[in-house]
Amino acid sequence: MNTIVSKLEKFTSDTAHVDQAAVKPLPNSRKIYIQGTRPDIQVPMREISQSDTTTREGAEKNPPIYVYDTSGPYTDPATKIDIRAGLPPLREKWIEERYDTELLTGLSSTYSRERLNNPKLAELRFNLKRPSRRAKAGVNVTQMHYARRGIITPEMEFIAIRENQRREAAAEYQELLTRQHPGHDFGAAIPRWITAEFVRDEVARGRAIIPANINHPESEPMIIGRNFLVKINANIGNSALGSSIQEEVEKMTWAIRWGGDTVMDLSTGKNIHETREWIIRNSPVPIGTVPIYQALEKVDGKAEELTWEIFRDTLIEQAEQGVDYFTIHAGVRLPFIPMTAKRMTGIVSRGGSIMAKWCLAHHQESFLYTHFEEICDIMKAYDVSFSLGDGLRPGSIYDANDEAQFAELKTLGELTQIAWKHDVQVMIEGPGHVPMHLIKENMDLQLKYCQEAPFYTLGPLTTDIAPGYDHITSAIGAAMIGWYGTAMLCYVTPKEHLGLPDKDDVKDGIIAYKIAAHAADLAKGHPGAQIRDNALSKARFEFRWNDQFNLSLDPDKAKQFHDETLPQEGAKLAHFCSMCGPNFCSMKITQDVRDYAAHQGVSEDEALKIGMQQKSAEFVEKGAEIYSKL
Amino acid sequence: MNTIVSKLEKFTSDTAHVDQAAVKPLPNSRKIYIQGTRPDIQVPMREISQSDTTTREGAEKNPPIYVYDTSGPYTDPATKIDIRAGLPPLREKWIEERYDTELLTGLSSTYSRERLNNPKLAELRFNLKRPSRRAKAGVNVTQMHYARRGIITPEMEFIAIRENQRREAAAEYQELLTRQHPGHDFGAAIPRWITAEFVRDEVARGRAIIPANINHPESEPMIIGRNFLVKINANIGNSALGSSIQEEVEKMTWAIRWGGDTVMDLSTGKNIHETREWIIRNSPVPIGTVPIYQALEKVDGKAEELTWEIFRDTLIEQAEQGVDYFTIHAGVRLPFIPMTAKRMTGIVSRGGSIMAKWCLAHHQESFLYTHFEEICDIMKAYDVSFSLGDGLRPGSIYDANDEAQFAELKTLGELTQIAWKHDVQVMIEGPGHVPMHLIKENMDLQLKYCQEAPFYTLGPLTTDIAPGYDHITSAIGAAMIGWYGTAMLCYVTPKEHLGLPDKDDVKDGIIAYKIAAHAADLAKGHPGAQIRDNALSKARFEFRWNDQFNLSLDPDKAKQFHDETLPQEGAKLAHFCSMCGPNFCSMKITQDVRDYAAHQGVSEDEALKIGMQQKSAEFVEKGAEIYSKL
Repeated sequence: MNTIVSKLEKFTSDTAHVDQAAVKPLPNSRKIYIQGTRPDIQVPMREISQSDTTTREGAEKNPPIYVYDTSGPYTDPATKIDIRAGLPPLREKWIEERYDTELLTGLSSTYSRERLNNPKLAELRFNLKRPSRRAKAGVNVTQMHYARRGIITPEMEFIAIRENQRREAAAEYQELLTRQHPGHDFGAAIPRWITAEFVRDEVARGRAIIPANINHPESEPMIIGRNFLVKINANIGNSALGSSIQEEVEKMTWAIRWGGDTVMDLSTGKNIHETREWIIRNSPVPIGTVPIYQALEKVDGKAEELTWEIFRDTLIEQAEQGVDYFTIHAGVRLPFIPMTAKRMTGIVSRGGSIMAKWCLAHHQESFLYTHFEEICDIMKAYDVSFSLGDGLRPGSIYDANDEAQFAELKTLGELTQIAWKHDVQVMIEGPGHVPMHLIKENMDLQLKYCQEAPFYTLGPLTTDIAPGYDHITSAIGAAMIGWYGTAMLCYVTPKEHLGLPDKDDVKDGIIAYKIAAHAADLAKGHPGAQIRDNALSKARFEFRWNDQFNLSLDPDKAKQFHDETLPQEGAKLAHFCSMCGPNFCSMKITQDVRDYAAHQGVSEDEALKIGMQQKSAEFVEKGAEIYSKL
Repeated sequence: MNTIVSKLEKFTSDTAHVDQAAVKPLPNSRKIYIQGTRPDIQVPMREISQSDTTTREGAEKNPPIYVYDTSGPYTDPATKIDIRAGLPPLREKWIEERYDTELLTGLSSTYSRERLNNPKLAELRFNLKRPSRRAKAGVNVTQMHYARRGIITPEMEFIAIRENQRREAAAEYQELLTRQHPGHDFGAAIPRWITAEFVRDEVARGRAIIPANINHPESEPMIIGRNFLVKINANIGNSALGSSIQEEVEKMTWAIRWGGDTVMDLSTGKNIHETREWIIRNSPVPIGTVPIYQALEKVDGKAEELTWEIFRDTLIEQAEQGVDYFTIHAGVRLPFIPMTAKRMTGIVSRGGSIMAKWCLAHHQESFLYTHFEEICDIMKAYDVSFSLGDGLRPGSIYDANDEAQFAELKTLGELTQIAWKHDVQVMIEGPGHVPMHLIKENMDLQLKYCQEAPFYTLGPLTTDIAPGYDHITSAIGAAMIGWYGTAMLCYVTPKEHLGLPDKDDVKDGIIAYKIAAHAADLAKGHPGAQIRDNALSKARFEFRWNDQFNLSLDPDKAKQFHDETLPQEGAKLAHFCSMCGPNFCSMKITQDVRDYAAHQGVSEDEALKIGMQQKSAEFVEKGAEIYSKL
């Protein structure tokens, strides 16, 4: 305990520094920006260049591969990162130009003002030099509101370019790289090409959201919806027992380096107001929170002492800091609570249990439910999106798909309609722990009850018996529910159920979930999703080891594993690996077969089908002993 | 390279020793044996005892949980392990009693005799004191043959007891532990209770196999079939570039400790005959091999120089050592090879590519195909099961479910019929790399073409882009195909595509696949599958931390992760963990709700539904501040 406290105390705004691991260049990668219709729409992507293929006839070029890049300016060597100053506010001008917001002369939240005026916090505090912003009185500044009025915002155009991942460059590719299996999308409506108009339309109908608080102008626009690439979220945050501001900022920069599309700050420990500020100011991805956690801190952990006023002030506090989406457990209704009494693990959502306790103590519907329209009014003044929390999600296989869970889901559908009436963006949180055969029912009911509002699920974990490996138990469920239509997958780290994740756990969780999300994109047949698989497999087949590493989700790990057995640099040119050794390599044998055919000056098919018999002797002579030897 | 060679040279039969990590007791676990109808049927299980639940009324007992135990005598403190002597031959008497085999006066394989008579190998050689065994002339000794004649062997009875996992003890359990979701089994025929007669019947119809070579009497009988628990296989084996006999034996004992149901020795390096002998003599689980690998070594890696005679001698060599199943790539037919020319990654199966090369060089159907009935004759003389290899499996997402793959699968179905004509047991190998939406087609076609012969798949990997994490990319596919009906899942380790797995990789692969297999059992609704989930979740909910660790697939890792943040022993009694700290624990809050209800002397439902309003004030007073404080 003492070491943790001392870590907390060591952090000051003077000593804050960027994690060097987060700004290290990725191998053979270049940050590029694709410009939109105006010069300040600069959409980042990662370009991974490849080496040539060596053939008997000479070298054959392999095109660069473009991948979705969540890492923000951290991986741009042209940007100087200073976390004490925060990231450049790239959306600021777009927000200003809409002339529907005003700069505040002071913070609206009582609590925010207290924190700002507390001299003891001076050395912890992020020094934000610009004022916060709010919609002008009576005005709605949500992306949904614009979309419904037919306006294509710069954010929407940015997203359209980003989602296409420069597939137009595919024309330069070998056909081999662009071919992919037709998918099975369970009724999604994924277009061949994402246009800004399509983005607008999806947001207008509520089928996708753009979490983009006007007070988080540092964020690079992204979209969450079943007709777009499947996204992943990484949870970070301290607890009363551990972690400092520096560590939490490092978890965020580490999470986005490996592919986190959004980050939730779930801090429940000390100085969560200040921690959140540091994270938001330095985050190029949307930040989500669960405001009830902080509200509970404000009443010293006594759930029954929570009030609408305290909660409301917390929402405004966080909205003016720039939180992009709020988890709100408004579906935990009083009559549903008894439905959980026979469960194996009761209520496992922290937010859900807080609200359940409040409801029981007061014997009233929760203030989240009764004040829902007032919450919408706050959301639309800053463009905070709802993430309607599944406070009654199952915490064990036993409790999956029960009455309480689906009663709440239906309520979330009703609340979605209310939010949409206010043009407030909504996504819906989902479970949890669900055996494989019960996963699809979750998706089907969510689509039905919530009218295709994006689904955002935690896993689900497909078994309870592997604590320490719940990134795997849940990646299985996440891949499946992503395929069925879930828009964003909330990661689970190996520490789930056991402890607070550290940086290694964050990375393990992220990679497991990038796998799940990508497997889902492939299964849905998302256009272009297979390019990276094709490129990596081609590199693998051609023994371009470095290309294989560089194209992978984690080049460091791939290279490290390879080098454990064959550390010599020459081994990365070898036409075999340590698994089979030189004589046994099946890829090498297949290449021999092809080479032989090509050498005959006919197509491979032809050579193989027609010419084989006469030439079999010749093959033995010429082709059968061309293995590279160590 | 030199360090690896020196490791090889250091091993001698004098220095061989058991890995101490493999014989360490598992926490709170006891090895028990359930006796069958005769005293020499002693079926091992692991009994995990639990601590009591502390309630306000006192202590409530939690029953021991029984889990399937693949670790053999290694985890039995009553057995002295000496790997130089090998394991006790528990099946020897059963085999003898059938009076259908004879002891050989000398080994039948030329190569085996050469190795035995080579004085240079003396210090490497396992000192087997008993002669090998073969069926009497013209006699069939397969479990399938007995089954079809209506004979229930001791092996079958052993398996029936083993598969039930002492669920009869469930009567002692709380109802909470035994309730489970009805499954979705895609037409499997899983009975409520496994009887020896059911085992016999499944083997007789070819829907399950019992890999049980008469020369591997050390093995504990197990079954592979879609109506039984899903099994997993671990691949081990050296290559020309690495690993020693000691290391390979350690990988085997490590693999079975964590749940490997069978082990394949895929060695392609030095001294593979001797390596195999050490593994078999010390293995309580069936051992599989790919005999073509060793045959290729015998012709110095020149595939085109392979002959039926060399291959035949290799089969006999390995059959007389006790290999329980052979992967035979007899489905790689000459006309299918051109179908692979347009693939992204050609032929990735080592065995498949060796045979393809042979076929092309000779322009003939492979000797595996043309001599298939003679192979059956060898198999039935020792009871070696076929694992019909998928030599044309896809090695990339691009190549999934193509013409070559399914042409071969259909051929495997034809070969299955031939094997069954000989009463030889068969399972069918499956892919590979397959996107999620194309997985089910593999299962459906396999069931159709191969008449429900057990399917045994490698993953499949659901994306190509994560080398270093292919235990995860493939656990996703493995769980799904296991649910659809695959009987055994061949693990993939994190080193797949990159290097030779070491012990850590073996464990990572095993745990990922235990997760996949168990998730599949849950989804199929396998009777009793949910007991362990229920028990673990109950322990989790009740903050019985040690029980939670002990019931998990990897107690060491779970405990280690927990202790990283809260190392004090007292923290394992704490009613919270480091993720949320004391005030935020949702499980604690739920317990408060229940405790409150229980305290009122009415059922939870009643209390919650009727009594809440009047008692809400009282609740605040009595129940709302009972958190444990650090």
